Amino acid sequence: MDSKITAENKSQFNRRDFLKLGVTAGVGAAVVGLAGEGCKTSQKKLATQPGLPKVPPIDPVRVGFIGVGHRGAGHVRNFLKLQGVEIKAICDIVPEKVARMQKWVVDAGFPKPAAYTRGDHDYERMCQEADIDLVIIATPWGWHVPMAVAAMKNGKHAATEVPAATTLDGAWELVETAEKYQKHCVMLENCNYGRREMMVLNMVRQGVFGDIIHGAAGYIHDLRQHKLSGYYENEWRVQYSIKYNGNLYPTHGLGPIANYMGVNRGDRFDFLVSMSSLSEGLHAYALEKYGPESKYSKMKFALGDVNVSMIKTVKGLTITLYHDTNLPIPYSRIDMVQGTKGASIGYPDRIYIEGRSPHHQWEPLEKYRGEFDHPLWQKLEALAKGSGHGGMDFLEIYRLIEALRTGTPTDMDVYDAAALSSVVELSERSVANKSRPVDFPDFTRGFWKERPPLTIPGPTAV
Amino acid sequence: MDSKITAENKSQFNRRDFLKLGVTAGVGAAVVGLAGEGCKTSQKKLATQPGLPKVPPIDPVRVGFIGVGHRGAGHVRNFLKLQGVEIKAICDIVPEKVARMQKWVVDAGFPKPAAYTRGDHDYERMCQEADIDLVIIATPWGWHVPMAVAAMKNGKHAATEVPAATTLDGAWELVETAEKYQKHCVMLENCNYGRREMMVLNMVRQGVFGDIIHGAAGYIHDLRQHKLSGYYENEWRVQYSIKYNGNLYPTHGLGPIANYMGVNRGDRFDFLVSMSSLSEGLHAYALEKYGPESKYSKMKFALGDVNVSMIKTVKGLTITLYHDTNLPIPYSRIDMVQGTKGASIGYPDRIYIEGRSPHHQWEPLEKYRGEFDHPLWQKLEALAKGSGHGGMDFLEIYRLIEALRTGTPTDMDVYDAAALSSVVELSERSVANKSRPVDFPDFTRGFWKERPPLTIPGPTAV
Repeated sequence: MDSKITAENKSQFNRRDFLKLGVTAGVGAAVVGLAGEGCKTSQKKLATQPGLPKVPPIDPVRVGFIGVGHRGAGHVRNFLKLQGVEIKAICDIVPEKVARMQKWVVDAGFPKPAAYTRGDHDYERMCQEADIDLVIIATPWGWHVPMAVAAMKNGKHAATEVPAATTLDGAWELVETAEKYQKHCVMLENCNYGRREMMVLNMVRQGVFGDIIHGAAGYIHDLRQHKLSGYYENEWRVQYSIKYNGNLYPTHGLGPIANYMGVNRGDRFDFLVSMSSLSEGLHAYALEKYGPESKYSKMKFALGDVNVSMIKTVKGLTITLYHDTNLPIPYSRIDMVQGTKGASIGYPDRIYIEGRSPHHQWEPLEKYRGEFDHPLWQKLEALAKGSGHGGMDFLEIYRLIEALRTGTPTDMDVYDAAALSSVVELSERSVANKSRPVDFPDFTRGFWKERPPLTIPGPTAV
Repeated sequence: MDSKITAENKSQFNRRDFLKLGVTAGVGAAVVGLAGEGCKTSQKKLATQPGLPKVPPIDPVRVGFIGVGHRGAGHVRNFLKLQGVEIKAICDIVPEKVARMQKWVVDAGFPKPAAYTRGDHDYERMCQEADIDLVIIATPWGWHVPMAVAAMKNGKHAATEVPAATTLDGAWELVETAEKYQKHCVMLENCNYGRREMMVLNMVRQGVFGDIIHGAAGYIHDLRQHKLSGYYENEWRVQYSIKYNGNLYPTHGLGPIANYMGVNRGDRFDFLVSMSSLSEGLHAYALEKYGPESKYSKMKFALGDVNVSMIKTVKGLTITLYHDTNLPIPYSRIDMVQGTKGASIGYPDRIYIEGRSPHHQWEPLEKYRGEFDHPLWQKLEALAKGSGHGGMDFLEIYRLIEALRTGTPTDMDVYDAAALSSVVELSERSVANKSRPVDFPDFTRGFWKERPPLTIPGPTAV
């Protein structure tokens, strides 16, 4: 895929404003009405969770991939480990990458998938003609929305890499398309499936931390070398650091925290404020590594080195969210959650449980593994090994396919994709406006009040 | 001292607004003019730092104390270790506390200090009639301003516990009084003198972290038991949790970060936004510990359990600042600083120096102690031992007395006291206004541009 950010229109038009005019209330209701009427299945579980598509079981799940570079190739590898899936189609602008994936599939003993390599828009042909149920999207950020929309419009479920959208318009388009066509649109937030995160989710649901009050998260990742080199196809990623100032990549940290807090399931994001530091890290790195005449040293960067957003939920919970990718610092997603009975934080992993931990002292989280390790992790540990990012990448794909094969709700749905991704544009707006508060759209139009908090069950069909 | 918050008027009048009317510019200049004219000493060092009082050396330094409870008694103990000081007067509303201090002084072989125990306002008599150079104030927050002002108006230097003020008016009153009477007004921010913090300051000044971009700090301290018990005289502290919602206690975390960044010395706080979570922790604790009929369970708390503020400086640096005192969590001030060459964070202490640390891995800060330990700590380690809070309490008093005895500038001055303390009211305003940005007053009226960053020298007169 090429590096044009403009593939997804980052216009200043805001559907939240549209909502304020009182127009979309009716539109939203109509869309929901469509959704309700268009479906004759009688899955009790789905019926209690408004807004989710009613999808009968699909088995096997036939899959097409768009984008098989660093990330997409990892997904292909994980799909090759799963039962009940067939890899039918591979799309990428680089034919060699597609050929490599075809070889992997054939070498694994399966039929050779079809290739779609005729340029930037050949994914449309794949979505139209390939005999598939699910499209996996791992392309530069700006392509996620048009590709997921193309998949859904052509009757396929969509699963996209993070962030699902970089604009509010894009987020709304995902929601509206998923509702209209009654398709899953899942954001592949792998960090929701980290062993630590799932254990903490388990503990949260069991009330170990009492009522949850606050969380902190982030994406603290020194990407200077990745941004300022040929690592990304056509250097697409650094373009965002040149053009935008906010939290470009909120979901890895925010996904697990949103799950702990029941966001879109009993609570929702209300508003945020966001602040960026000056931008110095990338330029300093370019100067030192490449010298003043390098093209990298001549780039002007909009992205502040450290961006911090604060999010408040409707119920009054708060979240601190970092984006810090231009400076030398060890990796962290922070992953802090705090309640009336205790707290946990990552990097290094610690926990404090009132009445169990020594007074005012952190303990290693590991101490509670035997009691609270997530059952899905216990069962899938061997399969997950070596699957990427410590195994979480396998679990996220496992759960997606399990949902499709059993006709049950996906863990993350289009409302989560929209809410988590909307932080990108909302933070940009707040930063540009002296950190003033910006309201989150309610992508669920009220569904959030009726839905129960997420629980991820143990394995049902390995 | 009694528990009335109203001793310092928390009115909504804001001198920043006054400044905007264009009135105070002239007033400020006049005050500065007075300061310049009123002093005939020729200390070169002071002359280059506008706004500081020109104070000839004082030796010995004769001291009076107001408030000798938990905190003030600790100060008395540290003064008893210092050369060149005389403890002349002790004031407290509880006569027994004064008598205890008198005994300590006498037992240490010094003359018995005078007692001032005639109620809430007897400090005024002490400031008027005692033959002292310096007043140490360790009373409930609302009393800091009137007591420091009384000291200065009566020709004494003032050193007050944190926060120096809880309102913007109070902060301005300190500044204006110090300027008018040419007296030191130092906020006793002991955390500026922590061994870790001084070592990091040393490293910052030596450029170890490159250009500083971001800092994070906080006061994360489970005070539920202290607030909801008789620990504080007349339970004064919990009154603030009942009445105010913001960052009640910003300076322990913020002091060191401000020093790293050169706040009021080349940079200054520009604006902040602040967000509070709901308030649940204190009530839940009261219910569980004392039952529903307890007076504590019937209190209504305004203070959100977790308050986070973000501060931006004029030069574009950013700070994340926590206040978290109502929930069970181990203590932390965070103390994170991050620049173009590395980062350090506390609890546990870690450091990353690009090119020295293993790639993308934290190292224990301790590893660099031999190279960067602050010389003042190396020299005073033995004396500091057992002096409170790991020794920092002794170093802060040592430096204050050293400045007075040598006629050199204090490390922290009234502008620092005002700027750091102003976060209290500014955060309250932002929280009350949906986290909207609130501007910091420039208490220096421009001095900050001319002053060099703080360095704390090694010892000169132990």
